[in-house]
Amino acid sequence: MIELDFSKGNGLLPAIAQDAQTGEVLMMAYINRESWELSLSSGVVHYWSRSRNKLWKKGESSGNVQEIREIRVDCDSDCVLFKVRQIGEAACHTGFRSCFYRVLEGDELVEDGEKIFDPKKVYGDK
Amino acid sequence: MIELDFSKGNGLLPAIAQDAQTGEVLMMAYINRESWELSLSSGVVHYWSRSRNKLWKKGESSGNVQEIREIRVDCDSDCVLFKVRQIGEAACHTGFRSCFYRVLEGDELVEDGEKIFDPKKVYGDK
Repeated sequence: MIELDFSKGNGLLPAIAQDAQTGEVLMMAYINRESWELSLSSGVVHYWSRSRNKLWKKGESSGNVQEIREIRVDCDSDCVLFKVRQIGEAACHTGFRSCFYRVLEGDELVEDGEKIFDPKKVYGDK
Repeated sequence: MIELDFSKGNGLLPAIAQDAQTGEVLMMAYINRESWELSLSSGVVHYWSRSRNKLWKKGESSGNVQEIREIRVDCDSDCVLFKVRQIGEAACHTGFRSCFYRVLEGDELVEDGEKIFDPKKVYGDK
């Protein structure tokens, strides 16, 4: 098992998910040791949800899991890059393909990302 | 000025630098409000160094600054994606093009990244 440096972030490390084919950065979220080990053993990305304070299998509600194609670790072993096949074509809970669907133009953030699904239909009216 | 959510990470947010042309993820580091504002006003990426506990103009020692081509902000406004032109062709202090120069193969991390410079020559024997 590869040892990551979980010490700096109180047991959490940032993890980046990137589309393995297009190179698009899809999202950034956190992993703890348990989610790291589950990602390795299952082949699909597991994060740690800071807002819900629980293990989070990406796509557990939406079905939009992230199949791992490649894993890279940075120079300090405190950040992970998952290259993935994004099932359902969308990573973001807002229905956009990428969480980075807003671009800075002047003093404004402008939505220019590709909307794939309607979150109300996928998650219900929460 | 775009307001980011600096509250969750004690004033720090993760920021990803991606090569604007090739899509390669170059590095991940942290920004605080001051480095965010300096990045916007100067057009080159400034981070906050957690290890040195100080503002960090990327490339201040090596000359390998990151010219900002595009800025994206994620759905929760707590992560920033800088699309950059990497001056000097290398982002990592180890001399590799990307900090993610190691790939997981089985139970091992294997270096397969492109080495651009010798850090001893750039930073001296520190």
